[in-house]
Amino acid sequence: MTVRFGLLGAGRIGKVHAKAVMSNPQAKLVAVADAFEQAAKDLAGAYGCDIRTIDEIEKAGDIDAVIICTPTDTHADLIERFARAGKAIFCEKPIDLNVKRVEECLAVVDETKAALMVGFNRRFDPHFAAVRKAIDDGAIGTVEMVTITSRDPGAPPADYITRSGGIFRDMTIHDFDMARFLLGEDPVAVTAHASVLVDKKIGELGDYDSVSVILSTASGKQCVISNSRRATYGYDQRIEVHGSKGMVAAENQRPVSIEVANGNGYTRPPLHDFFMTRYTEAYANEIAAFIDAIATGAKAAPSGKDGLIALALADAALRSVKEGKTINL
Amino acid sequence: MTVRFGLLGAGRIGKVHAKAVMSNPQAKLVAVADAFEQAAKDLAGAYGCDIRTIDEIEKAGDIDAVIICTPTDTHADLIERFARAGKAIFCEKPIDLNVKRVEECLAVVDETKAALMVGFNRRFDPHFAAVRKAIDDGAIGTVEMVTITSRDPGAPPADYITRSGGIFRDMTIHDFDMARFLLGEDPVAVTAHASVLVDKKIGELGDYDSVSVILSTASGKQCVISNSRRATYGYDQRIEVHGSKGMVAAENQRPVSIEVANGNGYTRPPLHDFFMTRYTEAYANEIAAFIDAIATGAKAAPSGKDGLIALALADAALRSVKEGKTINL
Amino acid sequence: MTVRFGLLGAGRIGKVHAKAVMSNPQAKLVAVADAFEQAAKDLAGAYGCDIRTIDEIEKAGDIDAVIICTPTDTHADLIERFARAGKAIFCEKPIDLNVKRVEECLAVVDETKAALMVGFNRRFDPHFAAVRKAIDDGAIGTVEMVTITSRDPGAPPADYITRSGGIFRDMTIHDFDMARFLLGEDPVAVTAHASVLVDKKIGELGDYDSVSVILSTASGKQCVISNSRRATYGYDQRIEVHGSKGMVAAENQRPVSIEVANGNGYTRPPLHDFFMTRYTEAYANEIAAFIDAIATGAKAAPSGKDGLIALALADAALRSVKEGKTINL
Amino acid sequence: MTVRFGLLGAGRIGKVHAKAVMSNPQAKLVAVADAFEQAAKDLAGAYGCDIRTIDEIEKAGDIDAVIICTPTDTHADLIERFARAGKAIFCEKPIDLNVKRVEECLAVVDETKAALMVGFNRRFDPHFAAVRKAIDDGAIGTVEMVTITSRDPGAPPADYITRSGGIFRDMTIHDFDMARFLLGEDPVAVTAHASVLVDKKIGELGDYDSVSVILSTASGKQCVISNSRRATYGYDQRIEVHGSKGMVAAENQRPVSIEVANGNGYTRPPLHDFFMTRYTEAYANEIAAFIDAIATGAKAAPSGKDGLIALALADAALRSVKEGKTINL
Repeated sequence: MTVRFGLLGAGRIGKVHAKAVMSNPQAKLVAVADAFEQAAKDLAGAYGCDIRTIDEIEKAGDIDAVIICTPTDTHADLIERFARAGKAIFCEKPIDLNVKRVEECLAVVDETKAALMVGFNRRFDPHFAAVRKAIDDGAIGTVEMVTITSRDPGAPPADYITRSGGIFRDMTIHDFDMARFLLGEDPVAVTAHASVLVDKKIGELGDYDSVSVILSTASGKQCVISNSRRATYGYDQRIEVHGSKGMVAAENQRPVSIEVANGNGYTRPPLHDFFMTRYTEAYANEIAAFIDAIATGAKAAPSGKDGLIALALADAALRSVKEGKTINL
Repeated sequence: MTVRFGLLGAGRIGKVHAKAVMSNPQAKLVAVADAFEQAAKDLAGAYGCDIRTIDEIEKAGDIDAVIICTPTDTHADLIERFARAGKAIFCEKPIDLNVKRVEECLAVVDETKAALMVGFNRRFDPHFAAVRKAIDDGAIGTVEMVTITSRDPGAPPADYITRSGGIFRDMTIHDFDMARFLLGEDPVAVTAHASVLVDKKIGELGDYDSVSVILSTASGKQCVISNSRRATYGYDQRIEVHGSKGMVAAENQRPVSIEVANGNGYTRPPLHDFFMTRYTEAYANEIAAFIDAIATGAKAAPSGKDGLIALALADAALRSVKEGKTINL
Repeated sequence: MTVRFGLLGAGRIGKVHAKAVMSNPQAKLVAVADAFEQAAKDLAGAYGCDIRTIDEIEKAGDIDAVIICTPTDTHADLIERFARAGKAIFCEKPIDLNVKRVEECLAVVDETKAALMVGFNRRFDPHFAAVRKAIDDGAIGTVEMVTITSRDPGAPPADYITRSGGIFRDMTIHDFDMARFLLGEDPVAVTAHASVLVDKKIGELGDYDSVSVILSTASGKQCVISNSRRATYGYDQRIEVHGSKGMVAAENQRPVSIEVANGNGYTRPPLHDFFMTRYTEAYANEIAAFIDAIATGAKAAPSGKDGLIALALADAALRSVKEGKTINL
Repeated sequence: MTVRFGLLGAGRIGKVHAKAVMSNPQAKLVAVADAFEQAAKDLAGAYGCDIRTIDEIEKAGDIDAVIICTPTDTHADLIERFARAGKAIFCEKPIDLNVKRVEECLAVVDETKAALMVGFNRRFDPHFAAVRKAIDDGAIGTVEMVTITSRDPGAPPADYITRSGGIFRDMTIHDFDMARFLLGEDPVAVTAHASVLVDKKIGELGDYDSVSVILSTASGKQCVISNSRRATYGYDQRIEVHGSKGMVAAENQRPVSIEVANGNGYTRPPLHDFFMTRYTEAYANEIAAFIDAIATGAKAAPSGKDGLIALALADAALRSVKEGKTINL
């Protein structure tokens, strides 16, 4: 079976997914839609696919699945439309910034029995996936404490902050999903501290740039998340899981792994500059998993519900900061 | 000047300090006191010093300073006695498990102008001290987020737990001091999550064995502490400080640093088995710093107040767990 | 400009190069030839190109360049034919196992002014290339001593050994080229020790499986090469360059870089299993460099002469073992 | 039993050994002798021992063993004198720079049945000893290829070079002993390349500063040694042993093991600055082993014969360079 794709949104991440589809022998990119004509043209030219409108893709008989890479505020509407149109749907996170809206949207997905996968790409990173596999293989016994360090290389521009929903919904949300992926159990309590240390403008916009979060599960497992909007040494992405029989960790990845030694010491180059290069393999594996789910009829994961729970955790973290207390879910 | 010492308590840690005094060219071990006669005899035999009673040491004209390594519930009384006797005092942490009692004791120390140093040995570890020096040298700009991972190799016996004052006052207290040492600013808010994952008996005694803590300072700096009473791979002691211009970290130390590679991969031996071997240099440096302070008349640090603040943070962390909220100090 | 390719040989390495051509926007795979019909069909099916005979490719007006991945004993003949046919040529190493034959072949290449690149893929590994760049950037001053460790995961079968030309011409040849790449100066003296430690059959076939080599240049630079046909921990590929101002090294690469810690210590997974996965990026970069050279008219490197010199070093190393002396070139 | 020591030579290394004796509960430093009165006084003052002449120590009834740290050209004579005087002897390497003289000296040692240990301190480094233990425990199967990298931080002054016997007898000799320690079999063939890359003056004195050596044993095991008189990043001391079932390596040691990350990358401080700090534990363990051998009557190792063989390998390496051939022993 060849899965035939329509791509909604030809921006940066759209291109990443287009390439993943193209290089997958089980898939074909049929058409792309983008409000910016030039972006659609460029992508169509590079990958040899049609340019169509979203309406045309919705009605197309030669398209089985869509990848939604449009702006966040269009996600829920598009998911509903394409669920009703009977297409399999891959949607970049988040479904929406509002929990209620996400719940409505997922109700439509349930009703229509549409296949929906949400883009938590990090689950598909080979190193993080290997951490999870080590846990599943019993290498560390029962999971007890998870540590996630996640720092962006630099703060985003003000207009991004405004549309982002805030650091918890935009950035920590990936770590909330990773926490659930590694804990193997849902958090029932959240506490967060947050401050503005990187860029005053972020504070003026009502957001934070440095946060620490603790999650606990019903059985007492704990997860600590540390986020900053700036790391001078690159895109800092580490996980560590401590269990009853041992510990497993995935260190940072580097584009080049040489070491230069001199009188100043031993120096390795900085980390990847951001997610596009750090998670190249993760993006390819993610789309491959989606294609595989469609081809085999298996349930696509992470699901819409995974997206919803991560968002609810983000909301709880924000409440915890505002109210100065642990929020029980 | 040669500083002449009396040692109160000839147990495990007493021996460590005796050795540090002996190998320091500026110091001399004059006498040891211990309720267990054999312990005192063994130490006196090994290091060639007198055996005396605490009373005798208190009145001795040939002793300038004492090292208090007796049980915790005797610390405050002994500090008061020796402060009044005009001796310089090094006391193992904690001064007492009760904040009020510590405050009374420190009032006597102030009154008598006694020199008092509290045994937070980790500040004197060469690697942790180098982290602090890197911060002081401006290598990472302004400190923003501190991460402390501190895990014991195995849970202590029930009777130790009973006398310990609980994990926050016994174990995390070292990390609270390290947090202050690295943040360069006092925490004003504490949140903690705690659970029993390692040993049910610990829970039955009303204590916890796995805790996560967030501290925040007035300027918004954050510190995350992760503690467990058990780590199968050894005594896990790591610190990391993230700042505006960079990051500095001290990794775990190993007694032997070989690596064996075969079909199973690349394996390095486990970490040190506990604090006695991990912090050998720290203990020697700590006593050297105390001797130096006495010899030069400088103020000994960490001070009694440092001990008090760390204890207050431990109390706040426990309250945070019990009340499910952030405790403001 | 789009470079149009014919591929000679559809085996394991042929597929690697076909994929590299396909994914390069400046290139197109027009046709494949292989004596085994099924191999040609499979590759043509996967990449959508023609199946043609070598004769047809030689005469084709729609083909600019060929990639030679046929058995070693056909390389020199094919290079001569395609040089005369005016095609640009990429040939897997070695050109031939016989220095004389290589010289004759390169005379034809010179005469016809054909573009010829020889497949020393390791120069294009991003990590090794970064080592070279660090040298070029002056990071270590003048190069003095190069250390190359190169070990295969397991010994090849007997029939491969028979056709290989021996370990120096088959395996060490890559290290001879890497030595020249890093030394920046040609070796003038070679000494080698060789023995059979891995597999007696290799000795019965007159070959060795464990060799150590020293190279020296006219200015006194030295290079040490260590080879084994078996490493239980994977495909061991390391380089280190010591210079007047510092040292630069490229460590081994791993497919997955997690670490598991328990009572046995800290374990990272084994290395890549062999060159196909270890040098994936190197193969893609190599063909990209060839395409770039054709497109821009620049001289392709490594050249035929680079192939010849590496072969001459292999011959000298073998003579050194046989004669028990340093061979001056 | 307490072993009573006389120390011959109160220089830098004499002090190291004096401290090792002092801190060993089974030993006592009775007297020191040194041609420079002040050096003897300083050491005697610091460690509370007598100052005596060599003659007095030779005849002393209260001295069981001597440690010879005088200039190299006095070693053989002193060994003979103290062997005849019935003392146990620890002598810094080398016994003499001339193989014949060493053989004569060892004949006296044999005749008198004196206990003699030669100071190849590196065997007692805990990391290198752990490598050897891993081999003995079967962790890597049969030893096949040993790699030793040994680089001094900086070239010694001209007058040291003049008295040193040349790089092979002065510096590589430690690696020859380490090679034998790790190979578990004596080398039968030696090839060396040598050049002057660090300091022209060294060449003018007829010596080399950069050498590469290959050793082979009768069973075909190989060892590669790489030496330089200068490493900008500190005292570079690494060993690696490749065997039939795996590999074991000991990496460099650092006085402080922090890592600082910023826009330039991740930097660890340089290595130890030289042998005094790098091999602190090795020196203490070495004297402890000597004391242990005397106390238990066991044979002291490394023996005089170990010293002789290492020297013979150094001579062979030099001949190999001069004659351009492999020297068979």
